[in-house]
Amino acid sequence: MRIARIGNNGSAPGFAAEQDGGGWVRLDALGIEAHSTADVIAARSEIERAMSGTSGADVVEDPSFLRPIVAPTKVLAIGLNYLDHIRETKSKQPERPILFGKFPNALNDPYGQIVLDKDLTERGDYEVELAVVIGQTTRRVGEADALDSVFGYTVANDISARDWQKADGQFDRSKSFDTFCPIGPWITTADEVPDPQGLALRSWVNGELRQDSSTKEMLFGVAHLIHYLSRGMTLEPGDVLLTGTPHGVGFAMEPPRYLAPGDVVECEVEGLGRLRNAVVAPQKA
Amino acid sequence: MRIARIGNNGSAPGFAAEQDGGGWVRLDALGIEAHSTADVIAARSEIERAMSGTSGADVVEDPSFLRPIVAPTKVLAIGLNYLDHIRETKSKQPERPILFGKFPNALNDPYGQIVLDKDLTERGDYEVELAVVIGQTTRRVGEADALDSVFGYTVANDISARDWQKADGQFDRSKSFDTFCPIGPWITTADEVPDPQGLALRSWVNGELRQDSSTKEMLFGVAHLIHYLSRGMTLEPGDVLLTGTPHGVGFAMEPPRYLAPGDVVECEVEGLGRLRNAVVAPQKA
Repeated sequence: MRIARIGNNGSAPGFAAEQDGGGWVRLDALGIEAHSTADVIAARSEIERAMSGTSGADVVEDPSFLRPIVAPTKVLAIGLNYLDHIRETKSKQPERPILFGKFPNALNDPYGQIVLDKDLTERGDYEVELAVVIGQTTRRVGEADALDSVFGYTVANDISARDWQKADGQFDRSKSFDTFCPIGPWITTADEVPDPQGLALRSWVNGELRQDSSTKEMLFGVAHLIHYLSRGMTLEPGDVLLTGTPHGVGFAMEPPRYLAPGDVVECEVEGLGRLRNAVVAPQKA
Repeated sequence: MRIARIGNNGSAPGFAAEQDGGGWVRLDALGIEAHSTADVIAARSEIERAMSGTSGADVVEDPSFLRPIVAPTKVLAIGLNYLDHIRETKSKQPERPILFGKFPNALNDPYGQIVLDKDLTERGDYEVELAVVIGQTTRRVGEADALDSVFGYTVANDISARDWQKADGQFDRSKSFDTFCPIGPWITTADEVPDPQGLALRSWVNGELRQDSSTKEMLFGVAHLIHYLSRGMTLEPGDVLLTGTPHGVGFAMEPPRYLAPGDVVECEVEGLGRLRNAVVAPQKA
């Protein structure tokens, strides 16, 4: 099943599920109330039952997709988690996952604008990532059972202000500016992703392929990350985990190639859809 | 006004406000529904009106205080922000605020137990901090107006696993283990705190004074922090900002003195109340 959040023709944004064979049906049209991704997760069985009775008449025409992640208690992110990215950045291989935060204010729509304010940063950069949506309260789960905690997967672009990432030392601020986390276009439930470590992922800037790798290059796979993090931190339904990016980021090129207003960035994970975000300067008041 | 969250005699936890002259009244008893700190902030005028009509009969006897922070979109924290703490740690004075995250799973009650699992860390440490509760959506606010964005203040203990803080480099994981952010005992609204930079703050371990300083020692004051962070990140009502800790932390002592099960830590900020948290080992299943 795929879950999206759509907003069309001035109607309030609402979560939607995809019918077998295609076509998105709003949950509120099925009498299911969901204000957050956690609400959708809690209503999963109800959604599956209701969807079995839908018809073509319920389908939203030409849906406009919004971020499918609403009100997570946290957005966790992992640094230096692809072997090819570790090599390109000439970094030491981490002995354990490196956790930082992307605060929820950074969440952006799958086709929303990435705002780069040159008064704030001149070194905006892209990172295609497999994003994991947690499906149940998870504490101290073993690696073998960890994937049972996954509700689904989606695509994220972990936009970073490289100047501040380096100057601050701590990553959180440089990774959390508003609009810095395009995510979506929808969530694909875990049952449709048998092996999260076998997915191609790619990014493009203005149509030029920049990143082209596979989640098999991850140093710490999804199951290990969930196991590791849940040792000390409770993971909650609707929480999101960004699992790191492969090689091909702008700052590691020689010379570096940063994003600028006018650019269009696309990020895709095999089978999960593609983000497409225009980079813009802020509108001055 | 002071806002708390209380749970007594098996009743569901609920937010409460303090009457003039003392005594806590549950908001649900006044017909005001509030499931999160943001809900309380949105209902402030309604609460003030309703409280003017309360009597002694409405008061909860012997209230049991719970964390007054529920469902924040983020808990921001600042490192190395007290001049005396910068000196004790022999650190370089930061040129700008150092931001990291304490994820909301870490939030703990003002008299709750801090769980130190020795399989996870052997270097738990305390940090008394002034915590700021944001009162309105805030983006790009000037320093002169920044305190208008504050709903109120409370006390936090920024518990840290010093072994992982050092080994990880990024602070978020070592600061975000479950129970690592006792907070409260209540929120004091900003109108009752005329100068957030003139407050004494202290901590004790087993009754021994460990930290004893003043918020005037902050390198970056509350107004500057809000201004600085809001340049790139939207702050939301109910968000919490921990403003750093003064000198006297355990890891900077010679030899270092870390927390251990059996210890009791107290943290107080002048006029805002005192946290009291016992340190325990995890209950093994």
